[in-house]
Amino acid sequence: MGISQKWSRLRLPWLHACGLHTAAVPILPHWLTERLGLFEELWAAQVKRSANMAQKEHRTIKIALPGDQKVDAVSWNTTPYQLARQISSTLANTAVAAQVNGELYDLDRPLETDCNVKFLTFDSPEGKAVFWHSSSHVLGAAAEQLLGAVLCQGPSTECGFYHDFSLGKERTIRGSELPVLERVCQELVAAAQPFRRLEASQDQLRQLFKDNPFKLRLIEEKVTGPTATVYGCGMLVDLCRGPHLRHTGQIGGLKLLTNSSSLWRSSGVPQALQRVSGISFPTAEGLQAWQEWREEAELRDHRRIGKEQELFFFHELSPGSCFFLPRGTRVYNALMAFIRDEYAHRGFSEVKTPTLFSTKLWEQSGHWEHYREDMFVLQPPGSDRPASSLSDHLTNHQAHSTIALKPMNCPAHCLMFAHRPRSWRELPLRLADFGALHRAEASGGLGGLTRLRCFQQDDAHIFCTPDQLEAEIRDCLDFLRSVYTVLGFSFRLALSTRPSGFLGESYLWDQAEQVLQQSLEEFGEPWDLRPGDGAFYGPKIDVHLQDALGRPHQCGTIQLDFQLPLRFDLQYRGQVGVPERPVLIHRAVLGSVERMLGVLAESCGGKWPLWLSPFQVVVIPVGPEQEAYAREAQQSLQAAGLVGDLDADTGLTLSRRVRRAQLAHYNFQFVVGQKEQSKRTVNIRTRDNRRLGEHNLTEAVGRLLELQSTRVPNAEEMF
Amino acid sequence: MGISQKWSRLRLPWLHACGLHTAAVPILPHWLTERLGLFEELWAAQVKRSANMAQKEHRTIKIALPGDQKVDAVSWNTTPYQLARQISSTLANTAVAAQVNGELYDLDRPLETDCNVKFLTFDSPEGKAVFWHSSSHVLGAAAEQLLGAVLCQGPSTECGFYHDFSLGKERTIRGSELPVLERVCQELVAAAQPFRRLEASQDQLRQLFKDNPFKLRLIEEKVTGPTATVYGCGMLVDLCRGPHLRHTGQIGGLKLLTNSSSLWRSSGVPQALQRVSGISFPTAEGLQAWQEWREEAELRDHRRIGKEQELFFFHELSPGSCFFLPRGTRVYNALMAFIRDEYAHRGFSEVKTPTLFSTKLWEQSGHWEHYREDMFVLQPPGSDRPASSLSDHLTNHQAHSTIALKPMNCPAHCLMFAHRPRSWRELPLRLADFGALHRAEASGGLGGLTRLRCFQQDDAHIFCTPDQLEAEIRDCLDFLRSVYTVLGFSFRLALSTRPSGFLGESYLWDQAEQVLQQSLEEFGEPWDLRPGDGAFYGPKIDVHLQDALGRPHQCGTIQLDFQLPLRFDLQYRGQVGVPERPVLIHRAVLGSVERMLGVLAESCGGKWPLWLSPFQVVVIPVGPEQEAYAREAQQSLQAAGLVGDLDADTGLTLSRRVRRAQLAHYNFQFVVGQKEQSKRTVNIRTRDNRRLGEHNLTEAVGRLLELQSTRVPNAEEMF
Repeated sequence: MGISQKWSRLRLPWLHACGLHTAAVPILPHWLTERLGLFEELWAAQVKRSANMAQKEHRTIKIALPGDQKVDAVSWNTTPYQLARQISSTLANTAVAAQVNGELYDLDRPLETDCNVKFLTFDSPEGKAVFWHSSSHVLGAAAEQLLGAVLCQGPSTECGFYHDFSLGKERTIRGSELPVLERVCQELVAAAQPFRRLEASQDQLRQLFKDNPFKLRLIEEKVTGPTATVYGCGMLVDLCRGPHLRHTGQIGGLKLLTNSSSLWRSSGVPQALQRVSGISFPTAEGLQAWQEWREEAELRDHRRIGKEQELFFFHELSPGSCFFLPRGTRVYNALMAFIRDEYAHRGFSEVKTPTLFSTKLWEQSGHWEHYREDMFVLQPPGSDRPASSLSDHLTNHQAHSTIALKPMNCPAHCLMFAHRPRSWRELPLRLADFGALHRAEASGGLGGLTRLRCFQQDDAHIFCTPDQLEAEIRDCLDFLRSVYTVLGFSFRLALSTRPSGFLGESYLWDQAEQVLQQSLEEFGEPWDLRPGDGAFYGPKIDVHLQDALGRPHQCGTIQLDFQLPLRFDLQYRGQVGVPERPVLIHRAVLGSVERMLGVLAESCGGKWPLWLSPFQVVVIPVGPEQEAYAREAQQSLQAAGLVGDLDADTGLTLSRRVRRAQLAHYNFQFVVGQKEQSKRTVNIRTRDNRRLGEHNLTEAVGRLLELQSTRVPNAEEMF
Repeated sequence: MGISQKWSRLRLPWLHACGLHTAAVPILPHWLTERLGLFEELWAAQVKRSANMAQKEHRTIKIALPGDQKVDAVSWNTTPYQLARQISSTLANTAVAAQVNGELYDLDRPLETDCNVKFLTFDSPEGKAVFWHSSSHVLGAAAEQLLGAVLCQGPSTECGFYHDFSLGKERTIRGSELPVLERVCQELVAAAQPFRRLEASQDQLRQLFKDNPFKLRLIEEKVTGPTATVYGCGMLVDLCRGPHLRHTGQIGGLKLLTNSSSLWRSSGVPQALQRVSGISFPTAEGLQAWQEWREEAELRDHRRIGKEQELFFFHELSPGSCFFLPRGTRVYNALMAFIRDEYAHRGFSEVKTPTLFSTKLWEQSGHWEHYREDMFVLQPPGSDRPASSLSDHLTNHQAHSTIALKPMNCPAHCLMFAHRPRSWRELPLRLADFGALHRAEASGGLGGLTRLRCFQQDDAHIFCTPDQLEAEIRDCLDFLRSVYTVLGFSFRLALSTRPSGFLGESYLWDQAEQVLQQSLEEFGEPWDLRPGDGAFYGPKIDVHLQDALGRPHQCGTIQLDFQLPLRFDLQYRGQVGVPERPVLIHRAVLGSVERMLGVLAESCGGKWPLWLSPFQVVVIPVGPEQEAYAREAQQSLQAAGLVGDLDADTGLTLSRRVRRAQLAHYNFQFVVGQKEQSKRTVNIRTRDNRRLGEHNLTEAVGRLLELQSTRVPNAEEMF
């Protein structure tokens, strides 16, 4: 297929109509003509080679399909796509790529030998990655053709894709350009351009991309073998491992979302690039559903809820730190109280450790070496004062020891373990600490409660004997499950094992990984294995929770540490009287309490369960005559430690005030009229406008306390 | 009386016997002979002058005595001592000085004109000051005679006295020398040396003290009139305002306590001196009682209790910060929960504010100007890193704004008040904050929980209208009384009014002082007025509490502030719609929670009331067969949130384990034998070994919860 043919297939009539500076694009730039020409030449040669191979190697091969199906195929001829069609036309239409003996294949790439074939669809994370990466090619093509962009990279992300490119030093991409760019993408999609996989030598690669400095650098850094793959799709030729969709027509709906700048950090001087991100789906309906979900999520944005409900705010005089208003503090304290209750049941001991430590501590723990850039360090005392007076002379004496704010609690807990001799009888020792942690996050990364410079964790460190490890891990997992169940989260576990360059003895790692695996098995929830994903100081169990909107968050963690007990020379007197080294487990369930508060705000969309709610009850007197009794009811609630507000604004009708309370998500409304006053009762409604009828005031308060202390998610239904 | 006579009265036979290098003392050094000679000469002249005056001015004068008694006396002749004898021999024996028309007089100094006379005894603070200052003369005399000391100053303190002197550049006083020095003091006391008051001219003073550079400097700096007083007592002549006891024989018991070095800070170069401190009482029994009290107080030292009970510890890697162990954290959290309960009842809203703030905030609040030296300031981010990389370039952008740790919460609460427009309907707004505060205390001042670099307060700021001020102050006072009553403290209030150099409008101060006075009156507890003792930014009510040992502590405060609302331009929309300025009240009840924990530990001597106790219950199985049931009982306690420990060490007899639990101050012991196990009961004893008999386990736990939640001081008696 020649260039002019392909161009004509693109049909971009609106490009001429919209009168942009890009109207010149149909006259292809020299470098693009040249690249396309070379690609077509190499492609033709590859097609010919394949045909030869197909002829020469023509033989029957055995294919194992999903569901134990076995079929015959022809080597260098049959493609996964053809096999998919044999299974069902639905599969053929929805498959996005194949897994051949575990290796990812384009659906149109001929099979060579006997193999297992599986199909990926958009429903799996791997399928989504192929789909979104392919969509990124479409975006890249549009940027190249419309804006003359020099493309850099276009990966898929957890939720969509982006493409980074350069428009030259001066030019940046503007938000107003996204709609036009999106329309070009949609044209390319409508053209159903096939993705063509070309194997090229290093020389050929350099020739193809001689005008693109980013690709040249990538070839230099990443291409280690004699050949690498290049994909052609319409007029775009890109260096890429693949696989991709069969053709762009498989993209049913595509939307560009944001424009921003990014940084190309390959070796050499960092270079500013332009980034456009987007999302795509196999069907237009899929995109539509996602857009609705996103609108809902934006409504649920915790920063928005935080502002509307007066939970918290931020201030430029303390960037990266949150000011919790009375209502936010209530939620915060309810979360802490929840964890404290669990601690009491589970044998954890809460402790309080300092915020400031000599950097000698951080040197000992290794934080100074590995984490220094993220720590807040103090000026030596008196460093901004004249050193003449006698008292300064005294303080200068201490100036040699620098002080830093703790970014983590673990070293302080090691000091606590070591502050006096320990016996095996004291183990397991489970020290929990809500201490404030400070980390010098770059200001660019700050946003809402997700990333803060100051936060508290439901942090605990368990010091135990190797024998106790398995039971402790199982208890940690049980702790996680209990808490997440109350919070309404599902979760998924993953075991990350030793990375290359791990520290410590191999046999210790063997034992520990085995113990973790054993605990996970016994725990009975599904879990994934992530070989090599552990930290260098110990294996860990990652916990990914899913909130009510199905979004993933990593909050909890269970992490073994072989290094800190060594670094702090922690010891206990073992049963036979000799000193032994304890095992250390770092663990958190909520993780950052601040961040969890944000996750919960979004997950419940501001409709807090009673036990967390800063809007538990509003008392509404029917008329001014009931105001005194309403205040009494309010005080009963407050005296019981419940949130009891009052809406005595009798300028508004009763129903308007009830409605207002429900919009503000008050779990319950206590309406009091003349009858209720005389009988000392309240008439109760829920925020979903269910009428629970008349109840004795004291009994109602008691029932609320009960529902609060049991932390039920649906107190309104259970009342 | 000649020198040799006086010497013979001293009778120091042991001096010769003990063979110290001081055996040379009886041969008086030249300068002392000379000084004593001159003093006796001047004294003889003054005695003669007085006799002349007594003769010349002989007339009857009118004396008003305490209790509206009026008596006649003879001018230049009658002394306060003579008047005291007329009243009662007890008074004559116990009086230490007189107040004549408000001026302090020696008891033997003749009265000159009509006057009011009152008598001071050791029972009043002023009387103690005279007594201890006189004792310091004895110490000075002993140091001069025994050690050849060059005396500097010897004042009384809050609890005793000290004397500073020089022994020459090389020599310091050793602790082993105190017993000998004390015996010399006791000899001087036994000699009942009279104090003789001499009026001397500046020339005579310089002559008397020509060999003492300290006194010469004092004469130069302090003596502004033509004459000043000098006191002779035995062989000591000292420059001194007086008054003193009649004679050293009034000192019934004297003890030297410590030796240390001190610094003479008069103008010129600071000079190192030796300091010996001591205490004295009118009777030997008084000294004995004090010594017993001091031993008790040492037993109750919170550092000792903290260590013994494993409440907390300190570590050199975080000087001035406390590590609270599990038990200490329990007490800490119980105190916080107490205050939180009060907040809920009293309409306070808890908030959480950041630790780190730009120094711009501290400039605005005035802390940067007045408090900077006590603040911890951060190094600018990236200041210890090479500034080459791009990310550093980004963070350097922020380096202009310095960050400091908050030493107080008030400015953060002002930001919170101002973060959105406020209406009069929201007032009073009572924001409470347990935020960690950091103050760069000098390391010399650190000790236990009394003075820390990091602590939390039960800090709150009330923003109200001027009309609400009186009610708010009254409620604050009521808050204080409630809490101190539960904690077992009595207290005394003092109103401190505007100092010279106060800021703000006079009429505002007038109003505010009136309102505070009004609130104090209505509150009904006794209070003192301290004119001029307020802060420059507002008047305040100081609260001095007395612990169970009768020791005073300043913990709570109620403080008005006119300045911060101005500095932060705080406003609310008033009832008529125009912007108005709120009044700000700073207040705390516990003050530093850490410090209060220390005060409480000492006050209860480690025998914590149930609700604060980290040693609530220990379960003791009679034999190994009951261990399982004992564990069950323990778990019932723990599940209810109570401290339930287990002593299953059946190697020890039951009575030994009960005794051990009582010595550890466990409020209750639950003993479980076979009978208790079969009936699911527990046999309860208290830490005072009262036997409360057999109780159903569930009911006992319920009763403990009740006693805990009502925070009674004597749960053991009320069970």
